Amino acid sequence: RMESLPPSRKLSDKCIPPAPPDMYCVFVLGGDGTFLSATRWIGGMSVPILGIKFGEVGFLAETAEDNLFSAAETVLSGEFTTMPRMRLSVRVFREGKVIASEPVLNDIVINKGALARLARMKTFINDRYLTTYRADGLIVSTPTGSTAYSLAAGGPVIHPTVPGIVMTPICPFTLTNRPLIVPDSVSIKICLDPDSTDIMLTFDGQAGLEINEKDTIVVRKSARPIHMIAMPDRYYFDVLKTKLQWSGERI
Amino acid sequence: RMESLPPSRKLSDKCIPPAPPDMYCVFVLGGDGTFLSATRWIGGMSVPILGIKFGEVGFLAETAEDNLFSAAETVLSGEFTTMPRMRLSVRVFREGKVIASEPVLNDIVINKGALARLARMKTFINDRYLTTYRADGLIVSTPTGSTAYSLAAGGPVIHPTVPGIVMTPICPFTLTNRPLIVPDSVSIKICLDPDSTDIMLTFDGQAGLEINEKDTIVVRKSARPIHMIAMPDRYYFDVLKTKLQWSGERI
Amino acid sequence: RMESLPPSRKLSDKCIPPAPPDMYCVFVLGGDGTFLSATRWIGGMSVPILGIKFGEVGFLAETAEDNLFSAAETVLSGEFTTMPRMRLSVRVFREGKVIASEPVLNDIVINKGALARLARMKTFINDRYLTTYRADGLIVSTPTGSTAYSLAAGGPVIHPTVPGIVMTPICPFTLTNRPLIVPDSVSIKICLDPDSTDIMLTFDGQAGLEINEKDTIVVRKSARPIHMIAMPDRYYFDVLKTKLQWSGERI
Amino acid sequence: RMESLPPSRKLSDKCIPPAPPDMYCVFVLGGDGTFLSATRWIGGMSVPILGIKFGEVGFLAETAEDNLFSAAETVLSGEFTTMPRMRLSVRVFREGKVIASEPVLNDIVINKGALARLARMKTFINDRYLTTYRADGLIVSTPTGSTAYSLAAGGPVIHPTVPGIVMTPICPFTLTNRPLIVPDSVSIKICLDPDSTDIMLTFDGQAGLEINEKDTIVVRKSARPIHMIAMPDRYYFDVLKTKLQWSGERI
Repeated sequence: RMESLPPSRKLSDKCIPPAPPDMYCVFVLGGDGTFLSATRWIGGMSVPILGIKFGEVGFLAETAEDNLFSAAETVLSGEFTTMPRMRLSVRVFREGKVIASEPVLNDIVINKGALARLARMKTFINDRYLTTYRADGLIVSTPTGSTAYSLAAGGPVIHPTVPGIVMTPICPFTLTNRPLIVPDSVSIKICLDPDSTDIMLTFDGQAGLEINEKDTIVVRKSARPIHMIAMPDRYYFDVLKTKLQWSGERI
Repeated sequence: RMESLPPSRKLSDKCIPPAPPDMYCVFVLGGDGTFLSATRWIGGMSVPILGIKFGEVGFLAETAEDNLFSAAETVLSGEFTTMPRMRLSVRVFREGKVIASEPVLNDIVINKGALARLARMKTFINDRYLTTYRADGLIVSTPTGSTAYSLAAGGPVIHPTVPGIVMTPICPFTLTNRPLIVPDSVSIKICLDPDSTDIMLTFDGQAGLEINEKDTIVVRKSARPIHMIAMPDRYYFDVLKTKLQWSGERI
Repeated sequence: RMESLPPSRKLSDKCIPPAPPDMYCVFVLGGDGTFLSATRWIGGMSVPILGIKFGEVGFLAETAEDNLFSAAETVLSGEFTTMPRMRLSVRVFREGKVIASEPVLNDIVINKGALARLARMKTFINDRYLTTYRADGLIVSTPTGSTAYSLAAGGPVIHPTVPGIVMTPICPFTLTNRPLIVPDSVSIKICLDPDSTDIMLTFDGQAGLEINEKDTIVVRKSARPIHMIAMPDRYYFDVLKTKLQWSGERI
Repeated sequence: RMESLPPSRKLSDKCIPPAPPDMYCVFVLGGDGTFLSATRWIGGMSVPILGIKFGEVGFLAETAEDNLFSAAETVLSGEFTTMPRMRLSVRVFREGKVIASEPVLNDIVINKGALARLARMKTFINDRYLTTYRADGLIVSTPTGSTAYSLAAGGPVIHPTVPGIVMTPICPFTLTNRPLIVPDSVSIKICLDPDSTDIMLTFDGQAGLEINEKDTIVVRKSARPIHMIAMPDRYYFDVLKTKLQWSGERI
């Protein structure tokens, strides 16, 4: 999708040939970065996808390396269910033209460079003015992404089946902010204030685009969710406790 | 509903005669406490309700004292819409019997007394064990209630139309906790650990019940939402900014 | 000290005979509650004290059960150093009379009852008005106490040798608050607003006193610190990591 | 100080001629950035300095534009007192050589670039290992700086006379972290883990230096505080309330 962008606006993706249209399912062997990369690769296709954790971190994986073969057997026998995971459809407009259009499974992040001043991000919900975030950045995340960067920025944990979108500012320059969860039916529009420099927009932590005051970012729920293969013995809150050490009690 | 409880389990409510079944609509003149009290009074009826702010705090009010007459005209002319606000249905079981059954618009709060030790609250989602919260207490809140006590305890702001339920611990005795938002389709079950003393359960901050280790609290989405009359010029995020000083920028 | 109080104001302490004045040192076998209780027992004496952890929680203990005999040998041989831990001197005035006067090692906590409304606590630093906290309560804590209740309420970790006092509100009814650390040279004065009911003041989580709008609480650094015996192999940050799971990295 | 660095390590400062050694006092007309820039300009000199707020933000200013002339008269008449504000002395070592040596009044910030992975910062207190922060970055701040970037990252407010240093991680990749306040007598040493790329170190938000795994950052209390001229009618907590909207109550 990004290949046709002019060089200066090229995302940092390596060039990957597009996914073949006739896949039965996708097995992703790796960590969350690899999984997110695979979801970008399959684009709008509704092919079932299974993450198999290789290595340290794997919140998106349904199973671990040890169970690769039994998981494969289960899937090949056709005896599996899939769970849809909402994605966000993100479009960036510059002077009326779409300069980027990406689905994300976790989040988009607007982030200032290490030496830049505060970013000022004017935000609209369904075209009505919400606020101008003054912060290091802003995360717009799916429930799936709530346990990724949004959590580090102070956001809540949202079960993947809650149809909401969370907006979490990064180091907001005010005491009066809190993460905000809006219904997944809204359209979120973000513009930078004039004189914004050195601001990046990243898609699922995978690809980045330098943005400026001429750009408008529009985020909506994507019509095409990710179809994650669900292992029968897997339970969201167990993952939460194992991976994040989330707990109500002393651990 | 509570009138038939044995005296020792009586809620702290004043006795109020039940609401007549044939009301056209309810106007609540007062603050949020009065509004919550009115929603308890109307119980399961689906009568339209309008909050008119008298005095300081009024997050649930749709309009202020000054607009009382114009609001009344609008409503009496029948030219109004209502917005459903999800309620939680809360039941408390003791030795197999229901000792309390209440709908709440904002939240239930389990809270230890000022001199009691930590409460230990064993929590299940759809009958599967989640965690044992060790904390001063636990709030189970609707999106409407997310701007009430849950916010004070560190919870996020959730738009009233997001179909989720937020669980926010109060002063958890661990660093590894965060508010958790689950879909509104789940059943939440909470039991106290043995040797729990001086623990109160409160419904919408209005009525309280002393609970102990023999009790099981079951929380589900209520089948009967509150039908709030919506004023045409009223916008949720404006209320958020006015009432809570919520803001992304320096205020 | 509390024995002479009129019955209605009696703290919840069990009556304990006063500590003999000629002790060489005190060994406390138990958890943090026992240790705090022992520091209250020794009152203003400057006797060295050593906590030996028996059971689960022991942030104040310097050593564990297994090392009891070697610790005893070390101490009896006189080859030990002590570290002073600042205490707060807390006095409660009612109608001009001192109705309670207590040193605390961890904290005082002002806390509303489970069914009470918000507490409104008017606060002065060196007799100059600071703010009126509207919250469930307020914690005034030493650095030693920063890892106890203040931490659960969202406070920072403060090394015991930092000469500061931390004020941490409990569930403040505002978004604009943050814990505040003041120098240990100040005097902190707290009064309740009129119509405050069902408010408790607790000393180190050990003893409680019901307070009301007629009372003034004055907190200062105590002239008499606790002299904790320091085990040579013990390092504050290791305890932090072991006991609290505090960590900068994934644990 | 930085002028002798090789070009690739040059800080982003504009070249400013050094401050003359015989100044009676310094008036800074501007915001906090200008004030911080002035404190860097005067370097180790102990000249009294007064901030006069011109424009929006001015936490470090003692007075506002309107009072410029009366403030000048007060100062020129010699009838003023100064308050020392602790600074941090920051040195960066690369392969045994000091490549930067700066005093800071607010803070140093280690921050990853917008597209970089997590920074891993190995931290030592008095040469003893503390933890390896995995985060977007780390702030080491004076009490004066506690109301600047550290606050945005979730840190507490620390009165300027508390002799402590606060370490606040930026978006830590763990739930188990909290800001940590250590005594101002310690030495803090920070190294980056191998394979750290695109990491910046900034001094008071004014000058930046790209750092990598070969560098060691050592932070200590500076022997040379800033001598801020204190206006008689100025009170720290009033500034806190005015500038930050910090409050215990609804504002």
